[in-house]
Amino acid sequence: MPRQDVTAVPAVLADDAGFLLARCGAMAIRSVNQAFEPLGVRARHYSLLGLAAEGAGTSQRTISAQLGLDPSAVVALIDELEQTGLVQRQTRSADRRTRTITITPLGQSVLQRARPLAREVHDTILSPLQPHQRQLLVAWLQELLLPADPTGPAEPEQAPGSGGNSHARS
Amino acid sequence: MPRQDVTAVPAVLADDAGFLLARCGAMAIRSVNQAFEPLGVRARHYSLLGLAAEGAGTSQRTISAQLGLDPSAVVALIDELEQTGLVQRQTRSADRRTRTITITPLGQSVLQRARPLAREVHDTILSPLQPHQRQLLVAWLQELLLPADPTGPAEPEQAPGSGGNSHARS
Repeated sequence: MPRQDVTAVPAVLADDAGFLLARCGAMAIRSVNQAFEPLGVRARHYSLLGLAAEGAGTSQRTISAQLGLDPSAVVALIDELEQTGLVQRQTRSADRRTRTITITPLGQSVLQRARPLAREVHDTILSPLQPHQRQLLVAWLQELLLPADPTGPAEPEQAPGSGGNSHARS
Repeated sequence: MPRQDVTAVPAVLADDAGFLLARCGAMAIRSVNQAFEPLGVRARHYSLLGLAAEGAGTSQRTISAQLGLDPSAVVALIDELEQTGLVQRQTRSADRRTRTITITPLGQSVLQRARPLAREVHDTILSPLQPHQRQLLVAWLQELLLPADPTGPAEPEQAPGSGGNSHARS
């Protein structure tokens, strides 16, 4: 698999960390989307299926916070996954306002087929780096996403309502 | 300036390089867009202004390749910058099909005001890392975007036409 979407970075932006992160992020999304075409899902569906497979009854708000996506974008993604039978929405009996997402057996099957494709894409994207550099890169990207202060992490920019997002810190 | 858009990365996606790059890229774009609000520009405008300021008469195709953006997205960005008087489109007399972009004095002024804001955002985003780690991260992100083989780099996924993109390698 050749690497996609690579061009020389223009000199004026070569040290612009924000530009580089955005370009690499866009490259990753495009490459994963292309690899997933036979499965009929995109990168965001894959992330959402992964979350749904982990937690039985993950709420839409938790998904929104954990994926860093606008709640309306999450609703649209879940609509798509529900229409293709990969997840199911359910209403918690304890709190009828909270709708939770459960992955279906078909969703599990798609997720299992998607995982090696995603790994192959990541190996391709990271191929310019040595193995120890890849590990450090992943660790540092994780650090960039960690709240600086565990006693008072920043709210996600587009978190719904004002009820806090302590569920996202677990 | 607090860091924006940070939440614990879900365990199932913690080692997913594509997810991490996409999340960090989205965080960078949101943070830069927010810092630029008083200037009336967004991160993509800033990148485009930077390119236009470097090369007198940069073509739309070069901009598309260098920013890794779909040509139609570049046209829309240039429309916005032209309407606000920050760039001008011109037609090359040698090749009337090629329209080039030149930054205006007002565009230069906005760019000069935007640069320290962008630097401040980048310092904030990278604050979890040590200085030498920040330098390595930037260098590695650059490497991920470099064509693997300079004799035959991959075409950008959405490059226009079939005329190659050798102009992007300069």
